[in-house]
Amino acid sequence: MDGEARGKWVYAFGGGASEGRSGMKNLLGGKGANLAEMANLGLPVPPGFTITTEVCTAFYDNDRQYPDGLKEAVAEALSKVEGVTGKKFGDTTNPLLVSVRSGARASMPGMMDTVLNLGLNDETVSGLAKLSGDERFAYDSYRRFIQMYGDVVLGVPHHTFEEILDTYKDDRDYVLDTALSAQDWKEVIAQYKAAVQEELGRPFPQDPQEQLWGAIDAVFGSWMNERSKTYRRLNNIPAEWGTAVNVQAMVFGNMGETSATGVAFTRNPSTGERKVYGEFLINAQGEDVVAGIRTPQNLTKEAREEQGSDEASLEEAMPETYQELSDVFSKLEDHYRDMQDIEFTIEEGKLYMLQTRNGKRTAKAALKIAVDLCAEGKISEDEAVLRVDPAALDQLLHPSLDPDAPRDVIAKGLPASPGAASGEVVFTADEAEELANQGRQVMLVRVETSPEDIHGMHAAAGIVTARGGMTSHAAVVARGMGRACVCGAGDLRIEKDGSKFSVHGREVRKGDQITIDGSTGEIFFGAVPTIEPELSGDFAKVMEWADKHRRMRVRANAETPLDAKTARGFGAEGIGLCRTEHMFFDADRINVVREMILAESEQGRRVALDKLLPFQRSDFEQLFEEMKGLPITIRLLDPPLHEFLPHGEAEIADVAKALGREVKDVKERLSSLHEQNPMLGHRGCRLAVSYPEIAEMQARAIFEAGLASAEGAADPVQPEIMVPLVSTKKELDLVKAVIDQTAAKVFAEKGSKLNYTVGTMIELPRAALTADKIAHTAEFFSFGTNDLTQTTFGLSRDDAGSFLPAYLRQNILDQDPFVSLDQEGVGQLVAIGAEKGRSVRSLIKLGICGEHGGDPASISFCEGVGLDYVSCSPYRVPIARLAAAQASLVLRQQNEASS
Amino acid sequence: MDGEARGKWVYAFGGGASEGRSGMKNLLGGKGANLAEMANLGLPVPPGFTITTEVCTAFYDNDRQYPDGLKEAVAEALSKVEGVTGKKFGDTTNPLLVSVRSGARASMPGMMDTVLNLGLNDETVSGLAKLSGDERFAYDSYRRFIQMYGDVVLGVPHHTFEEILDTYKDDRDYVLDTALSAQDWKEVIAQYKAAVQEELGRPFPQDPQEQLWGAIDAVFGSWMNERSKTYRRLNNIPAEWGTAVNVQAMVFGNMGETSATGVAFTRNPSTGERKVYGEFLINAQGEDVVAGIRTPQNLTKEAREEQGSDEASLEEAMPETYQELSDVFSKLEDHYRDMQDIEFTIEEGKLYMLQTRNGKRTAKAALKIAVDLCAEGKISEDEAVLRVDPAALDQLLHPSLDPDAPRDVIAKGLPASPGAASGEVVFTADEAEELANQGRQVMLVRVETSPEDIHGMHAAAGIVTARGGMTSHAAVVARGMGRACVCGAGDLRIEKDGSKFSVHGREVRKGDQITIDGSTGEIFFGAVPTIEPELSGDFAKVMEWADKHRRMRVRANAETPLDAKTARGFGAEGIGLCRTEHMFFDADRINVVREMILAESEQGRRVALDKLLPFQRSDFEQLFEEMKGLPITIRLLDPPLHEFLPHGEAEIADVAKALGREVKDVKERLSSLHEQNPMLGHRGCRLAVSYPEIAEMQARAIFEAGLASAEGAADPVQPEIMVPLVSTKKELDLVKAVIDQTAAKVFAEKGSKLNYTVGTMIELPRAALTADKIAHTAEFFSFGTNDLTQTTFGLSRDDAGSFLPAYLRQNILDQDPFVSLDQEGVGQLVAIGAEKGRSVRSLIKLGICGEHGGDPASISFCEGVGLDYVSCSPYRVPIARLAAAQASLVLRQQNEASS
Repeated sequence: MDGEARGKWVYAFGGGASEGRSGMKNLLGGKGANLAEMANLGLPVPPGFTITTEVCTAFYDNDRQYPDGLKEAVAEALSKVEGVTGKKFGDTTNPLLVSVRSGARASMPGMMDTVLNLGLNDETVSGLAKLSGDERFAYDSYRRFIQMYGDVVLGVPHHTFEEILDTYKDDRDYVLDTALSAQDWKEVIAQYKAAVQEELGRPFPQDPQEQLWGAIDAVFGSWMNERSKTYRRLNNIPAEWGTAVNVQAMVFGNMGETSATGVAFTRNPSTGERKVYGEFLINAQGEDVVAGIRTPQNLTKEAREEQGSDEASLEEAMPETYQELSDVFSKLEDHYRDMQDIEFTIEEGKLYMLQTRNGKRTAKAALKIAVDLCAEGKISEDEAVLRVDPAALDQLLHPSLDPDAPRDVIAKGLPASPGAASGEVVFTADEAEELANQGRQVMLVRVETSPEDIHGMHAAAGIVTARGGMTSHAAVVARGMGRACVCGAGDLRIEKDGSKFSVHGREVRKGDQITIDGSTGEIFFGAVPTIEPELSGDFAKVMEWADKHRRMRVRANAETPLDAKTARGFGAEGIGLCRTEHMFFDADRINVVREMILAESEQGRRVALDKLLPFQRSDFEQLFEEMKGLPITIRLLDPPLHEFLPHGEAEIADVAKALGREVKDVKERLSSLHEQNPMLGHRGCRLAVSYPEIAEMQARAIFEAGLASAEGAADPVQPEIMVPLVSTKKELDLVKAVIDQTAAKVFAEKGSKLNYTVGTMIELPRAALTADKIAHTAEFFSFGTNDLTQTTFGLSRDDAGSFLPAYLRQNILDQDPFVSLDQEGVGQLVAIGAEKGRSVRSLIKLGICGEHGGDPASISFCEGVGLDYVSCSPYRVPIARLAAAQASLVLRQQNEASS
Repeated sequence: MDGEARGKWVYAFGGGASEGRSGMKNLLGGKGANLAEMANLGLPVPPGFTITTEVCTAFYDNDRQYPDGLKEAVAEALSKVEGVTGKKFGDTTNPLLVSVRSGARASMPGMMDTVLNLGLNDETVSGLAKLSGDERFAYDSYRRFIQMYGDVVLGVPHHTFEEILDTYKDDRDYVLDTALSAQDWKEVIAQYKAAVQEELGRPFPQDPQEQLWGAIDAVFGSWMNERSKTYRRLNNIPAEWGTAVNVQAMVFGNMGETSATGVAFTRNPSTGERKVYGEFLINAQGEDVVAGIRTPQNLTKEAREEQGSDEASLEEAMPETYQELSDVFSKLEDHYRDMQDIEFTIEEGKLYMLQTRNGKRTAKAALKIAVDLCAEGKISEDEAVLRVDPAALDQLLHPSLDPDAPRDVIAKGLPASPGAASGEVVFTADEAEELANQGRQVMLVRVETSPEDIHGMHAAAGIVTARGGMTSHAAVVARGMGRACVCGAGDLRIEKDGSKFSVHGREVRKGDQITIDGSTGEIFFGAVPTIEPELSGDFAKVMEWADKHRRMRVRANAETPLDAKTARGFGAEGIGLCRTEHMFFDADRINVVREMILAESEQGRRVALDKLLPFQRSDFEQLFEEMKGLPITIRLLDPPLHEFLPHGEAEIADVAKALGREVKDVKERLSSLHEQNPMLGHRGCRLAVSYPEIAEMQARAIFEAGLASAEGAADPVQPEIMVPLVSTKKELDLVKAVIDQTAAKVFAEKGSKLNYTVGTMIELPRAALTADKIAHTAEFFSFGTNDLTQTTFGLSRDDAGSFLPAYLRQNILDQDPFVSLDQEGVGQLVAIGAEKGRSVRSLIKLGICGEHGGDPASISFCEGVGLDYVSCSPYRVPIARLAAAQASLVLRQQNEASS
């Protein structure tokens, strides 16, 4: 990829026309494409240009060298900006200042670097002063530039500048920055420059060109910083996409009381209500709002009144500009046909648009906006279905606070991300991650959050901050992750040593339980009980539309009647995986299971199995009752044996006593059962082959329960009996023979029959590769992608923890293959298995029952392979329904496009 | 499959013409096809007919029901036999008697059932008496028939009859069976019949048709008996092949002193010498010779003199018949162009041929016969190469007795199967298997062996019997298995309680060491030292011819200079797998390795690695010296970490002391390194990704050693550096970068360069499935079929012992997939990997380095897939060379046939 071959590295925008447009996101990044599009729409966009993502890719492919021709292209684009603005970069009398910002294909808020006011130096600053007629503004801008450039580009620590400024203010008893005069800023600037000289051994760069390339380097460089990598990993953004760099003429929201800067959503991103929603700060630069340092004002009068704020809204303070902005909102919504997230600046009363993009929203808002846009005639039903991120539904599917439960409110903040959650209080991201890894539920409490806290926010059940607004880092990230979040709870006083916080005279120590309601902003002491969500209204409407388009069935993985009921409530169309070994963990059963495992003869096993039969039968009866009329796939015993066995002296002694055996004997048997690699050991159908009496007992329980529940029922359950861990057809033949013989026996005893089928998990590479053989016997396949992932990668899920995180960090794997199906490798085996299965038995029923059955990307893959159903955990059923509908719609669109 | 569709279930032979021929082995079995062929050649074959193997298959496919039309076809064929012989089945004056014998596609000596003299009953026996003029012979035949049919068909235990006969003889002070008169046999027969009546509650069947179908049922039934299944499993014979049943008119070798029965090989099956070799018994039935109950006489005078026997040879006793037989030998050898194994009977001076087949032979004999037949112009060089079973070469490649070692001969028997072996004496097959499973070398000592002993013979290093000849069960089976064997050591007195044997007044107790030389028949007390075989003469000639036709290269898996030297001596053309972790097990290194593993920082690991570097470099220097001019594939560290770690308190304390660390710390680190499934854990390239410094040290050792050995050498080693356990291209990219950087550094330091390549093991399903991606980086692939088998089957080699034997017994798997490549499953991945690799890098070097690289069937598969080389253990190199040549020849023949 060289400059000559590619030709175009830089795209100009502004001045009434653009070289790019909104469809070019992959090349220009989201910000660049939308700036171009807004300029094309005739909206007031400061002119600028975008350096493409291909430059980023070339930069990293070519050992951090830029492609040939880039320098010239940038120079040319910059001179265009000079033409439009009538200013000149580096000119001492009429200097052009620019911002340099990242802009990737997908939004990565706050992850990468930004530099504002670039082009200022000891000479241009005085030009700016004269031009603006405001010397204080000019030197304030310059000191901001040195601070930002010093930190971001030159690597001088942030605190170096902060300390200089604090000392300067303390010495003069200044409290607020606004107290500093132009002269003060000049002195601060001198100290800043001295600090840079001392830190780096060279002066702060005065050459605007050097400044510009330094900033471009820094932005491209920030694509590979740790927090960007983490964000990409959590959000499944490939490193190969790269970022674009946007260089744009500066406009100033900090040129006095007629200047302002703000952010807005065209609808409420939390509820979806069709009301302008946003915040602004008078006399401020853009980053001040997002950073959440000053608490901003409302855009509309209505919002101000609702929040009981005394600060004038933009609607009241600058009614004409507000009207102009409001018209822009309508124009953008009509154009993009979606809710927009907008950044704007008002420079001495003149409005400038700095960004628009489809706004992030809560699941609830996504549903409402999709339904409303459809009602408004802006989008079709199909589009509405495609507009809702299935994974985000997760937020709606979890419990909220029980309204009748007693609660002890200790504080209130902003309702930044909906949902209720309880957890142990921790004060650092590391603590949050550590405790979460121990399986504990934690609540991360911070003054404010920063990108460095992402791993802790991911680990936490909920997030509380003492500072920052609804668009602060914490709020944006929490909504994206579906974590409950209360922001800006200003009454919290958090101890610096991370031991506790106090609020209104009460103390909450690390480790104490608190509960938050992200929909109200309330914080409660202790763990408040929660209740299941009610799913209706917009949710029901979108799901109804989705179900119209869905081809694949959605089933649930469930063993208990409660799980089955939950799943059915969420719309599950059957059970895709009933793991019978999970039915044996109860206290009254586990000793019988142990007796069976420890038995050394068929006779001994049969004694234990006879005791297990009534338990198992009654479990199935309850499950069949709950799932009447729907199919249930029951997997025969696939125990990781060691999970059932006693560990430690005391437990072994207990078991020996319970079984009436010598401790020594039990230990010997345990030792003979020990396996080097239990995952690759004597499990699955291998047990049923060795001990057919186990399969026989289970088949009997299924058939007896099935006949009992079929009595007088119009729509009896149809059990699908699934044999696990098959690697050869003959294994399945043997186990199927046991099942069929047992069926014949039970049917003869009871004088009644039941329809059933026998199939297998395809969870070993060999099963997928020989699926054409296995399908001669198997009446259905269920792809067990958990085990299939383990064996295809040669990677134990239990042991991957020691290196898989590093693999994700180093981008060796884009995603955790146990979370989202590895389509390139494991997916090939699923496709091979499906194809070979159908080659022999054209109507063979095909499903998936690994964790992947609830993952939207994996569901989309399953649609492509033509599976008949996916099966997932009960709470993910709605997600799977929506994802399956989307996959079906997308596939149809692709087919239409290619035909 | 029904009678009408198939038409022909029965093929007649004899009377000068046959419906079958020798090419129809799959349908008629070996015995049936060759009987038909001999009859076609005009040789004296008693007439009969063959019921096809398809009947057997249909019988088992159809719940042990015969296909329609079989009864009629058998009746028709039987009447043809009546026509040729002029006798009538069931006729009381001129009765036709028949034998009913199994006959599968592949020889399974002694595994299945046989019934002789069928057709005798209380009435036909007197017809036989009149016809033969020998009442004693007739009643002896009848009692033999009742005994054999009672045991084989009716299931009356053998000892029931033996006890009756022993009691009868004891009561009358008879010692030998020959002492019994016709009247005596009549009385014994009466008692036999009474015993059958008592045991079964019904009389011994008198209806010859009922007898015939009972025997046919029994023979087909014996296809699925346990010993047949074991034999098939050990010899890789599919159960689907089925057996044929041969019904043939009886001829009698036991009609007095002018009658005899015998077996012969047209050449010596032990040495290959072109000398008739065989044994016969006068006045006996065929089974008497094979069963090894009476010690038989030699066929030729020369053989008798060599053995110092006093019993007349056939050449001396019946010179005319011997001459006739000798002519038949020539005719058969000319016709079949191979050494024949023949059974014959002489009935009152008239010769009958009962069987011919290509004779089993030792590897040494196979080589000599192939070379001789080629020299005689009977076969081509190509055919000679194809005539030698590569696996059998194993016999030649193992040590023989050191001629200079002191030896203490305690007995001498027949040299039944060549090779020398030592082991602990055991007296039962079960003991042999048990101790062998503990890794001990055992010598199985038996009075005689039977098919029930096969598992013990397989487990033993050698076999000794006190009774039986060169064609006894023990001798035939031992030669087939390549076990050293001394037969008929008649001086051994074995205690019934299995505690010891005595010989010439000396006692050898269970557990004592003895040594045997299967080429001389000598038995020694104690373990006699052995020496390496010399491979020349016929071996060298056949290998030379083989190498002409071989396409694939053969390399060895070796780490030590000694192994490398052995491999090179056997013709290895390089090293295909140098497992560097094996270089670390020495006492002076393991503690350094432990230090490295237990280190908790890169710094700590580097300290240990610096200590390992000189060891590793010097190892490579020696290896490179040994393999000058040949390629060496060096696999980077792939340790099963736990194999290096200390276990048990004492060892942990030692290690802690050696490392200067606290026991507690070492234990903590050990516990943090513990893995649930080490096979799927943090190993292979995952270690090099986590700790690049390990790969760096190894690469440095390789390059430094390579440069040192290249100094002044005309043909320096070309190291091929192999990265293990790769599942994604990026892993390989990362490790290759470390190797390339290290190379650049070392080459700069030394001012000299070396050619090297970097490639990967394909040993995970994902690697095979994404080989097109990986081949962008990998310069070669080596299929690591051990691990690939584990992951494809989801089967741990360490843990499979608890159920894999049962899987083989139950025919779920035809073969142990760790011994012979599972072509259906694992083979698909090898083929996919090879194809995808070549799709990206058309000349990519492809090899295999699992255990399968030395298995002939797997090698044939590799030829089909077009691999460039196989790599195996040094002792299997000649086997691989021959197998690769055969695979190449067979493929060429197939291509020629299909073009």
